[in-house]
Amino acid sequence: MGSLGKPSQPDRVGIIGAGVIGAAWSARWLLRGSDVSIFDPAAATERLVNEVLNNARHSWERMGVAPLQEGSLTFANSVEEASEGAVLIQESIPEDVGAKKNALNQIEKSAPASALIASSTSGLLPSRLQEDMNNPERFLVGHPFNPVYLLPMVEVVGGDRTSDEAISSAIQFYEIAGMKPVHVRVEIDAFVADRLLEAVWREALWLINDGVATTHEIDDIIRFGFGLRWAQMGLFENYRIAGGEGGMKHFIEQFGPSLEWPWSKLTDTPELTDELIDRISEQSDEQSGHHTIRELERIRDNNLVDVLLALESNSWGAGLSVSTLRDG
Amino acid sequence: MGSLGKPSQPDRVGIIGAGVIGAAWSARWLLRGSDVSIFDPAAATERLVNEVLNNARHSWERMGVAPLQEGSLTFANSVEEASEGAVLIQESIPEDVGAKKNALNQIEKSAPASALIASSTSGLLPSRLQEDMNNPERFLVGHPFNPVYLLPMVEVVGGDRTSDEAISSAIQFYEIAGMKPVHVRVEIDAFVADRLLEAVWREALWLINDGVATTHEIDDIIRFGFGLRWAQMGLFENYRIAGGEGGMKHFIEQFGPSLEWPWSKLTDTPELTDELIDRISEQSDEQSGHHTIRELERIRDNNLVDVLLALESNSWGAGLSVSTLRDG
Repeated sequence: MGSLGKPSQPDRVGIIGAGVIGAAWSARWLLRGSDVSIFDPAAATERLVNEVLNNARHSWERMGVAPLQEGSLTFANSVEEASEGAVLIQESIPEDVGAKKNALNQIEKSAPASALIASSTSGLLPSRLQEDMNNPERFLVGHPFNPVYLLPMVEVVGGDRTSDEAISSAIQFYEIAGMKPVHVRVEIDAFVADRLLEAVWREALWLINDGVATTHEIDDIIRFGFGLRWAQMGLFENYRIAGGEGGMKHFIEQFGPSLEWPWSKLTDTPELTDELIDRISEQSDEQSGHHTIRELERIRDNNLVDVLLALESNSWGAGLSVSTLRDG
Repeated sequence: MGSLGKPSQPDRVGIIGAGVIGAAWSARWLLRGSDVSIFDPAAATERLVNEVLNNARHSWERMGVAPLQEGSLTFANSVEEASEGAVLIQESIPEDVGAKKNALNQIEKSAPASALIASSTSGLLPSRLQEDMNNPERFLVGHPFNPVYLLPMVEVVGGDRTSDEAISSAIQFYEIAGMKPVHVRVEIDAFVADRLLEAVWREALWLINDGVATTHEIDDIIRFGFGLRWAQMGLFENYRIAGGEGGMKHFIEQFGPSLEWPWSKLTDTPELTDELIDRISEQSDEQSGHHTIRELERIRDNNLVDVLLALESNSWGAGLSVSTLRDG
């Protein structure tokens, strides 16, 4: 591969795919001052990207990251055009292995030899995605979280043929973008975040399938309960505290046996019948169908900014993205 | 049963068990102005309760709930003594069915006929706990979340013989305490919250068991990622937004197939060997062994107060506990 050099603010970022994730990647880089060239064949691309960009501007201004020195935005006509001259290319198309491999081949045709190529996949193995690439060593996964222009986390995952240099470059790029990259050192399906999310999702589907609780009740139980704990400390740190003076070991010894209790056995997946899908949709409509998606996005983003600002000074650094963005 | 009457601020609350949960229940009711009588045979009870109470005072002052008109605190010498004259008795001893049934019998011996009796169990079925009671209709589960003096959620679960009146009284009591009760209408092992928590816990154990990630990395991935989403909107509401203009139905149809992907099959539980327990403990020590539990508690509580204050005005009411407490 060409030398990746020492990453600094990337002059130009290529984004392939302008769904919710791709559009929000564009917003983060544009507001960070990089030029962005984005490609998606969908007719609504320009409207969607601009709507997401407006959401991001609103939130960054609320975080005090203003006035913004935005980069320039180009709507490219092809994958190749979006990749030309880019320092970093972020593939963000739907989760289809074949389509992603095709896109990577197209990216390689026109990307500079020194460009870093990342995929936003939330769970496909980088080793598999890179297997037909000419220069697989510069490819890795950078899995972000919606809304990408606000949430700091990005899972960085290399494949069998990814170079160490590519990993460290990606980490530095994402840090420049005000993010908190975590290197997932072992390549597994769904990485870390989606393994955890899927476990909860499966369980939540059962609760609805069995008529135990509605979407609204489940959401309330999460956000008024452990969601508040997780937002600022995660899982284990809270359990460490729950262990009291005996610490983590005490907690596990106390809590461990419950893994053998009946509720641990409910681990298969309910069939997603039309009836179950309808039930979830109807409950969700009842919960917040009176808001448009744009309104919900705005409410979510305002809340996230408020929480990030609230946590800015905490010693764990959960608000670090705010300071990073503001300072530089 | 005796008539429960219309609940107002309870003059006197009995707390049975002074672990982390029982002590924090005492703090919530004391700071809310109720007299509390608490019993626990452990030698360190008085010290622990006072430490938790100090934590709670610090946090409620930071929330602007001051000056506090605290109730009086009594350390009782028996379950019976703690239950005498109480309007609400909250059992909070360890998760042992036999011990809890014994405690409930002792509570019934001296509790007023009109008293409401609740258990803090995080997953034992109320029908089972109440089966030997003389007046089972006034018994239910009120499952809170640590730290109880800050987190608003409490799951209210009745058993086969619990009266509707008891459920509605409990909900009103907990609302008076500044909480956000959710009535879990179907009685299942572990209720709703611990079903979800256990799913994540199981998956996190695998990730550590398989050497994929450390406690610190998992915590970072949660708190810089979806933890921030969950703290303010929960699970389904965020997925509704992720579905974009197509809404929840679109999201499920898009996301559903991944439930058949390989990562969904990793649903059994890793054996909690000494080696695994040690690994988790060591990783947790490395993560934050330089802080005492008291320091960690203070950091957590400060963060929680900041987040609650940040969300106070959001239209979902996630900060409602702050306003409720402040207003009276």
